[in-house]
Amino acid sequence: MEGDLALIQEILAMNYKMLEASGFHLCEVEMINQRFSEMFFAGGNGSDQEGLGELSFPALTVFVPLLSPTEDQDLLLAAAYVSDAQYNRNVPFETSPQAIRLYYFYNHWAMQAATYFFICVDLSLALFEEPALFPLPFLVTSIAEVLCLTAFFGRLVHFAKVTPQMVFWKDTKNICIMVTIVLTLVDLIVYGILEALNVYGIRWSRALRPVFLINFPESRQIRRAFRSIRNTLPDVLYVFLLFIFSVGTFSLMALKLFGDRGLKTVEGSPYFTNILDIAFELYVLVTTANSPDVMMPAYEFNWWYSLYFITYIIINTYIFMSVFLAVVYNNYRKHLKNEIRTLAYLKRRKMIEAFNILKVKVGTESVVKEAQWRRLVKVVAPDISSSHLELLLRILDEGQKGHVDKVNFLRLPDLLNIQVITINVKRHPLEAWMPRVYQSVFVWAYDVIILINAIFIALDEKNPFISYAEWLFLSLYIIEILLKLYTYEPRAYFGRKQFWNWFDTLIIIAALVATVANTTIQSARKYNSQQILDIVLILRILRLLRVIVSIQRFRVIVTTLINIGPTMLTFGGLVLVVYYVFAIIGMEAFHGRVHFFGPNSTSPDALTCGNSALRDSAFARGKYCRNNFNDLGSSLILLVELTVVNHFILLANGFALVTHQVAKLYFIGFHIVVVILIVNIFIAFILEAFFVAYSLEKSEVETAIEKKIQELGVGVQEEKVQDGRLIENMDAKDSGFIEDNKKEDLKGLYFRIASKKYRTVDALLQQMFESEIAPEEEGPSLEEILNFSPADIYPKNPSFENSA
Amino acid sequence: MEGDLALIQEILAMNYKMLEASGFHLCEVEMINQRFSEMFFAGGNGSDQEGLGELSFPALTVFVPLLSPTEDQDLLLAAAYVSDAQYNRNVPFETSPQAIRLYYFYNHWAMQAATYFFICVDLSLALFEEPALFPLPFLVTSIAEVLCLTAFFGRLVHFAKVTPQMVFWKDTKNICIMVTIVLTLVDLIVYGILEALNVYGIRWSRALRPVFLINFPESRQIRRAFRSIRNTLPDVLYVFLLFIFSVGTFSLMALKLFGDRGLKTVEGSPYFTNILDIAFELYVLVTTANSPDVMMPAYEFNWWYSLYFITYIIINTYIFMSVFLAVVYNNYRKHLKNEIRTLAYLKRRKMIEAFNILKVKVGTESVVKEAQWRRLVKVVAPDISSSHLELLLRILDEGQKGHVDKVNFLRLPDLLNIQVITINVKRHPLEAWMPRVYQSVFVWAYDVIILINAIFIALDEKNPFISYAEWLFLSLYIIEILLKLYTYEPRAYFGRKQFWNWFDTLIIIAALVATVANTTIQSARKYNSQQILDIVLILRILRLLRVIVSIQRFRVIVTTLINIGPTMLTFGGLVLVVYYVFAIIGMEAFHGRVHFFGPNSTSPDALTCGNSALRDSAFARGKYCRNNFNDLGSSLILLVELTVVNHFILLANGFALVTHQVAKLYFIGFHIVVVILIVNIFIAFILEAFFVAYSLEKSEVETAIEKKIQELGVGVQEEKVQDGRLIENMDAKDSGFIEDNKKEDLKGLYFRIASKKYRTVDALLQQMFESEIAPEEEGPSLEEILNFSPADIYPKNPSFENSA
Repeated sequence: MEGDLALIQEILAMNYKMLEASGFHLCEVEMINQRFSEMFFAGGNGSDQEGLGELSFPALTVFVPLLSPTEDQDLLLAAAYVSDAQYNRNVPFETSPQAIRLYYFYNHWAMQAATYFFICVDLSLALFEEPALFPLPFLVTSIAEVLCLTAFFGRLVHFAKVTPQMVFWKDTKNICIMVTIVLTLVDLIVYGILEALNVYGIRWSRALRPVFLINFPESRQIRRAFRSIRNTLPDVLYVFLLFIFSVGTFSLMALKLFGDRGLKTVEGSPYFTNILDIAFELYVLVTTANSPDVMMPAYEFNWWYSLYFITYIIINTYIFMSVFLAVVYNNYRKHLKNEIRTLAYLKRRKMIEAFNILKVKVGTESVVKEAQWRRLVKVVAPDISSSHLELLLRILDEGQKGHVDKVNFLRLPDLLNIQVITINVKRHPLEAWMPRVYQSVFVWAYDVIILINAIFIALDEKNPFISYAEWLFLSLYIIEILLKLYTYEPRAYFGRKQFWNWFDTLIIIAALVATVANTTIQSARKYNSQQILDIVLILRILRLLRVIVSIQRFRVIVTTLINIGPTMLTFGGLVLVVYYVFAIIGMEAFHGRVHFFGPNSTSPDALTCGNSALRDSAFARGKYCRNNFNDLGSSLILLVELTVVNHFILLANGFALVTHQVAKLYFIGFHIVVVILIVNIFIAFILEAFFVAYSLEKSEVETAIEKKIQELGVGVQEEKVQDGRLIENMDAKDSGFIEDNKKEDLKGLYFRIASKKYRTVDALLQQMFESEIAPEEEGPSLEEILNFSPADIYPKNPSFENSA
Repeated sequence: MEGDLALIQEILAMNYKMLEASGFHLCEVEMINQRFSEMFFAGGNGSDQEGLGELSFPALTVFVPLLSPTEDQDLLLAAAYVSDAQYNRNVPFETSPQAIRLYYFYNHWAMQAATYFFICVDLSLALFEEPALFPLPFLVTSIAEVLCLTAFFGRLVHFAKVTPQMVFWKDTKNICIMVTIVLTLVDLIVYGILEALNVYGIRWSRALRPVFLINFPESRQIRRAFRSIRNTLPDVLYVFLLFIFSVGTFSLMALKLFGDRGLKTVEGSPYFTNILDIAFELYVLVTTANSPDVMMPAYEFNWWYSLYFITYIIINTYIFMSVFLAVVYNNYRKHLKNEIRTLAYLKRRKMIEAFNILKVKVGTESVVKEAQWRRLVKVVAPDISSSHLELLLRILDEGQKGHVDKVNFLRLPDLLNIQVITINVKRHPLEAWMPRVYQSVFVWAYDVIILINAIFIALDEKNPFISYAEWLFLSLYIIEILLKLYTYEPRAYFGRKQFWNWFDTLIIIAALVATVANTTIQSARKYNSQQILDIVLILRILRLLRVIVSIQRFRVIVTTLINIGPTMLTFGGLVLVVYYVFAIIGMEAFHGRVHFFGPNSTSPDALTCGNSALRDSAFARGKYCRNNFNDLGSSLILLVELTVVNHFILLANGFALVTHQVAKLYFIGFHIVVVILIVNIFIAFILEAFFVAYSLEKSEVETAIEKKIQELGVGVQEEKVQDGRLIENMDAKDSGFIEDNKKEDLKGLYFRIASKKYRTVDALLQQMFESEIAPEEEGPSLEEILNFSPADIYPKNPSFENSA
């Protein structure tokens, strides 16, 4: 450890310069150096083995007694680094034994699940607070909120114990959480007092609740999406100003061209006489929501005037909206690349740190001994099978020299992220019996069965013959699953990444349960339970997906969609945060202004949504009373409708009528944030993901492991990549088997890589840019990493803030 | 010439194999080889100097007498190759002197203008034919059409004389034109007879008219856009089928979920009871045109059902539409790259051919003598200034060896495409007088004047003080232009690429003329001419653009938009073709079904648009009668409205009511073609153009010419590229001057590169991919070009069909 001191000093000095050159604030530079020091000077401290949390890593307890205390302490620390590298966690943790123990506990899935549980509870409180979907007394919701706040505070204290004090206090995320906790408590108390005095108060702190979702270290993805938006803002702003200028210029023209014509809109009000109204109408025309109504009066007056609107639409709706997408996409790519690159560097640093802890000298070379390496992997991945472990060792220690060198050691986290499935070689019973028939008949037969089933579904299910047929289909599906279970063994069949097997089984079992339940209820009470019937129906129709997936060309698209599904959930989180804030503001501003009197109400108020300001308005005539801000559910659905944009102007006008014209700003603001920014980032993400999917080649690490599997003769042939596209091995039924197992020691074992499915969102993102950062990844030495120019390594908004 | 024979034989054999390997049909391969042979065996034929068309290249006559007949013939042929390379023309022409003369004539701008004129006349005939905007007798339009057809036939005959017979007859474009001419004549005769017999006939051949626009060699851009679409189709088709499957599955679910509930729509009709209606409504929901109306009945019944619609919108509207964009964009890039690469190879081949014609041996090296090179350039660019020619020679003959070698010779077309402006060095009179004041005050003063002017415009122009102020502003603008003209000399100020100078001058002159005209009319007749006032007003407001452009950050965006303007016109052509076909079909199907009775009609029929089928329909209630297919103008405007998509369902339902439900297919077809394909290609194009603009670096050739200009000390400093972005030198007022003219022979001349503006659309596209094909471009030898793997060079749909 001591020998590296000079080098580390040098590196720190270089770091300092480098970071300063790239425009960091001094305190940030110090903070980062602090973190580097933590990393480099970690390990070698006195060890304290007792009190190791069994809950946090039960597998560890098996190994710990075998090690000397110091060795054990080192191993735990190294394992923590490797594990962080594997999962791309970037929390700088204290290296005292106590802190490492706490750090393992901090990363335990149960703790993370608990945090998310409390975040969910906190966010869903809006359902029970006034204006409530399910009203609860203020006392109940406030106690629940205080409970959540306590949990958040506890989590924060836990984090403070894990991370160095200086890092903790300089991290804005932690400050944010603490300030929000205090503000929420203050608001709760003030509101409680006002409530007791029967004074009207606003629970404004409710809009702050998403802060918890954003700021806990687990929500890295959502923070990254927010950073994407923030980084995009400057460029978007310039385009936006230009766009506003364009709308303003066109408004001025419209006022001069149409203002004095005495034209009337369809509703009989004066047409284009007020510049603010014109600007709003033209802004809405960009959303296309009032086309062609907005141009009809001018068009009817003289058809040449339609050219004005067509020019406007081409420039503002088509060109400017495309430019927004271009700017957002361009920035998205640029910043994403920088972030992923930084992540790759941090990962590399962690692995070098782990290596330095475990290394021993063999000849002139620093290496990690085989035994030590085995112990490390067992700690990092407690449930790894011994054959899988052997396979990894064979890959990293190619010459079977009994140790792993530095270059190979650094590949460990990538290898661990590749899922290798151990499969057996039993044939399908039908395949063994008549192989050709199996391929051509059995596999297709079930597609045909599903299609026939679809036709039956389309027919009337009240016909008893058809409802009996459903039992036949169900049993056929169950037979198929049982056959497959027999062939592939339950463990392989229900592998973690066997999406379609899980899909099949869940749908069939759910359909079975629901059908049985429904039949029981029906026969027992002569009552047709609609909810259960609905569920059964949807499950039956979802089976049709199986047919689509069995067609090669569709599989590429569907698989890409499923692969990017988890990251799409990130956008779900992002959208949820924005929707939540807008919903809370909307509820405070508009609740109770519009009432819904039920679908078949004959009350005269139903025609005006209970608000006389809406008399004869398009809002009331369109029967839009159900679209209101009277509770969280309705608000969120209304916001979805606003995202879709159509009838945007009708909704905005409706709520402006029942409050004030200023209310339109709320709707314009929502449009800018959600439609111009978030939807464009979403489209940019899908574009990028599809480009990667269309051109994805196996990553270098995967190729290495595959080569090894083939070399060892224990592989199973994968479907080949055709047309340069990624073809997923969706289902074990598609792969042919190779049975030439020459090597003795791994005999009887067959491996298959299941890793073209991405294990984590980060892995997908890293894969996206892997080809571009591959050269750096190949250069393993610390000096090389530090030799890159600062601008290359450090984005303007570094992901370091990501890590603490 | 003879010495290369063996090499050429070998190349032809290689070509043959190469093309076969890449899946060409044999006849195509032969055709291409035929063209290669034409190219390689051209030149050295007997010459025939007389009868050289003076109209086609007047500058040539100056030089021809100085040359010996054979030399002259060779020079003409070489110049034709260089000119084709410069403008990316790929017409294989006969090399007989007669054919070359015809070829020069064929490429003359007057001939091309005449062709486009007749195409415009032919297309605009639809304005005068029944259903007509301006009715003309059938005899008049049919005579005009026959005239156009004759012109097209003449152009085709001209082309046949230029190009080898075999190439001509194998080109589908020529066949297409001939077949269309014949079909149109047949249709004209049949319709004429039916007309005479008073029988109702359909002028179906009118939908074929865009064939002429597409198929003449000049419309390369539009054909390329069409090829983009065709190449994209297979991939889009798979996504589309998946999408249709998804819509179908959701329709089935909707039928089962909502069909039996007895729900009613806002209009009181049954809700979601027929699977076809549901499928149509759900398809329209993808366009967002019926959101949220389509979900309101279900949402009012039970708010859980809104989840069904939200799921549908997320999957089909957001994800599938993004996937469409991703697939279209991906294919667009891929095929564009291939086409541009092929173009680059063809250009290279033409230049090698030209070199082989003119080359002489100097030592071991084949070169082109300086005198010959000068003659060549003078033929290719007759109006090149002698200083510009010297500059080019200095660049290509760096060692001043008196000849140009092969590598440098091949750079000629790129150099010719770079516009170099010769400018003088006078300072602005105000700048010379007080330099600092000029920079800080004068330039900004006019921005302030424009802004004040804008405020005046926003105020009421009927106030006499304000209308007098307009005269003051006009004179201020004229003074500015005169000052600039004095400073930069008219020739430099009105340079071909000085967009903003032209813009300023045109707007001011037009405003001056219009204001004078209006004042004259007003005082003479006390009559306020509305049309002139409108024009004056729009011109005044357009001046505001100047302010925006003077701000650096906005300039990048505006300049990119202006640069891609010409290519956007390609999309204009594409859209025009599609609109025209749909408009003709729409007019045949729907004309006269809906009537418009004027904006203030009190006729009872006005409420139903003159068709009782529309009684109480949303179409009539929305006062959409003006949206009809009763003439070409109305049809095109209606199609624009359909492209914008909003109220799509209202329009589709309206026309379905007056005809048949099948009419909805017309609208769905239009949506698929225009919104899903063309709009997405348009967005893809803008995305790509912006990415290039954001990362564009000067091309290698430009850097060379700039370096030379600097070396010779006759350069003018350009604005630097900042932030890695392209900053256009919009206006001479921004550039500082360097006055160190060391060299004697070019003294007093200052050059400025005006070439970051793209001269042709092809140049922009080539620039887009220049960085990617640069390595190939550096390899100058024929062998190297032919050594690339066929897959790299030849796209599946090669642009060779482009060339004939």
